[in-house]
Amino acid sequence: MAPKPDQPELFNPSPPPSELSDEERIACLRLIRSENVGPVTFRDLINYYGGAAKALEILPTLSRRGGSGRPIRICPKADAEREFATAARIGAMPFFTVERDYPQVLAGIEAPPPMLYVKGDLDLLKRPSIAIVGSRQSSAAGMQLTRLFASQLAEAGFVIVSGLARGIDKAAHEASLGSGTIAVVAGGIDWVYPPEHAELQARIGSEGCLVTERPPGLKPRDRDFPRRNRIIAGLVYGVVIVEAAARSGTLVTARYANELGREVFAVPGHPLDPRAEGTNRLIKQGATLVTDVSDIIEVLQPILGLEDRRSDLASQTPAPAPAQPLPAPTLEMASEDVLNAVLTALGPAPVATDAIARQTGLNVQAVQVALLELDLAGRIERQGQSLVALKATAI
Amino acid sequence: MAPKPDQPELFNPSPPPSELSDEERIACLRLIRSENVGPVTFRDLINYYGGAAKALEILPTLSRRGGSGRPIRICPKADAEREFATAARIGAMPFFTVERDYPQVLAGIEAPPPMLYVKGDLDLLKRPSIAIVGSRQSSAAGMQLTRLFASQLAEAGFVIVSGLARGIDKAAHEASLGSGTIAVVAGGIDWVYPPEHAELQARIGSEGCLVTERPPGLKPRDRDFPRRNRIIAGLVYGVVIVEAAARSGTLVTARYANELGREVFAVPGHPLDPRAEGTNRLIKQGATLVTDVSDIIEVLQPILGLEDRRSDLASQTPAPAPAQPLPAPTLEMASEDVLNAVLTALGPAPVATDAIARQTGLNVQAVQVALLELDLAGRIERQGQSLVALKATAI
Repeated sequence: MAPKPDQPELFNPSPPPSELSDEERIACLRLIRSENVGPVTFRDLINYYGGAAKALEILPTLSRRGGSGRPIRICPKADAEREFATAARIGAMPFFTVERDYPQVLAGIEAPPPMLYVKGDLDLLKRPSIAIVGSRQSSAAGMQLTRLFASQLAEAGFVIVSGLARGIDKAAHEASLGSGTIAVVAGGIDWVYPPEHAELQARIGSEGCLVTERPPGLKPRDRDFPRRNRIIAGLVYGVVIVEAAARSGTLVTARYANELGREVFAVPGHPLDPRAEGTNRLIKQGATLVTDVSDIIEVLQPILGLEDRRSDLASQTPAPAPAQPLPAPTLEMASEDVLNAVLTALGPAPVATDAIARQTGLNVQAVQVALLELDLAGRIERQGQSLVALKATAI
Repeated sequence: MAPKPDQPELFNPSPPPSELSDEERIACLRLIRSENVGPVTFRDLINYYGGAAKALEILPTLSRRGGSGRPIRICPKADAEREFATAARIGAMPFFTVERDYPQVLAGIEAPPPMLYVKGDLDLLKRPSIAIVGSRQSSAAGMQLTRLFASQLAEAGFVIVSGLARGIDKAAHEASLGSGTIAVVAGGIDWVYPPEHAELQARIGSEGCLVTERPPGLKPRDRDFPRRNRIIAGLVYGVVIVEAAARSGTLVTARYANELGREVFAVPGHPLDPRAEGTNRLIKQGATLVTDVSDIIEVLQPILGLEDRRSDLASQTPAPAPAQPLPAPTLEMASEDVLNAVLTALGPAPVATDAIARQTGLNVQAVQVALLELDLAGRIERQGQSLVALKATAI
């Protein structure tokens, strides 16, 4: 069961982002909406099997080989077409991670959302941005400071990103409508939430930019709010937390920002003010204390400077070559032996793909193909890009 | 003009603290109250010339040799006796730096006040202490937090030190009267200031401890308030700043605390609250953000632990030998050549004693004796222990 020494170069983990044909887009959407296809599986399927259409073809086989007792549920073409038609009617554009126009800062995070719906001024997604978020039960002083920071950061060239929630988020959007504001929402782009922000949401959809990973018309589920917060953290260079209670959704955004290597800025407050409990703790944990916009710009300037130099370099060098044609489809699959070896190496505690390869003596690519099959069969759970565990129900 | 190679060992910069006779105390007080005798000169005179009485004897000669055009003003014995009589009447005890009972933490700083008057429970000065200081225009929340911190730090074993000012200082003293409070005042111990704290000052003088470096009966001058703040910082392991405006006396205490290597703790506040401007800035500059007493204890515990081990060691080793008899008086003085060489090396910008020695080729002791003479002649200014400059009027 030694790894095949001269396995062909099937694996191209990050091909240059391409422009997709309408047909390939439909296939991408179907893939995302199919059973057991998460962000990592989506990317791996497209990369390993030469595009979404080819991946759709091979999906049933992979799932069956991974050990699923029943056929995998694949999103029907009609459903995908209907979703896109609805999106087009409400003015929402889909962007897939494999596309050039997908926001590049977000594309760089671990397991980015495979697709975003975006409505409004798409150019805002290309400018450097910073998030301002905070309590829904905000104080008057917190609202005032948010408006001040939002307009001063806008003057410094930043697009303001927030979550369209009551309180701080609302103040951040309102103060940056004229200069550039992006609202990431937890439900469909056309799902109005909270109800009293209907007009603000509509204005952002035309003057600013609305972003979500949820299909049109869908009400947000509880789990969509932390996912929304992760997208906010992923889209920006830094997150400014204006007010946050001890256990609040705002702190979830701060945690994601930390995990994704974003700068975290926190506004201090009096220890007896419960709205400052979260921000003061963030400062103790290493967030930058912010009383003034210059505190933020001082930290971000070097990062932006790097970006500027990078785009200077880009403008001096020839434009990147057009997307390479994807590699020819292949029906490369894991052998029964490989599958069993990988299954034996897995347990309820997450392990890294590398560790599985070392333990089984297989090469990493063989392990990845086996994991793809097990994933599609609904037998494993992924954590981030490289950690994987057996599903509780599968043990 | 080479340094004498076998100069006798005249210089014993820190002899063990001694118990002074009444006569030696009077001499010490006269020395302090004489013209041009600051903390460094006081210590050097006593150390180099074998005690205060001998130093008084040699003072006129040294000053004349340093180049003073007129006789140095020496405090008459009657004046010193009268001051001590007044102090005794109001219950104030004098402690000199050269005495064992002078607070040891304060004695360790650069240029400690040569003498303190102390009234009340002297044992409080031997316990580990922490300062809580802040705005006179304090907020209700600031007062509440001060009382909470003071009582919780008292429970943790700390004596609370503050400056008897309105606002935060008052709350800190009131909350720690029962457990141990030290008030450092800027005027004489019997000078009531501010007037509305008369009763509190009296209670601290009996139940707690009052400390000042000013003689009885004297109203504080403007310059006595920063001096008071330096004593506060010098007496403690750490300083907690509860509220402080941008330019405030409280920040002077924080600056001294930093200079003296004390821990600085600051309570954050909302950026739009002017009372938090100073504390937020301190945190940006590296002060520990404090929302809870545990934040303070966590930092100070290791320092206190060291102290505990030190006193454990002390209790295992024999008691320190009684103070050595001071070395025999000597009329060792700087030669004219040495004086001129040192004068030439001096300018309006402060230089270190070492640098003068290097520049002149003299040994450090010879330079120090020359500086002592120049200081007594009123021709130089000292900054800290080792920096020295020509006085503007002497240039």
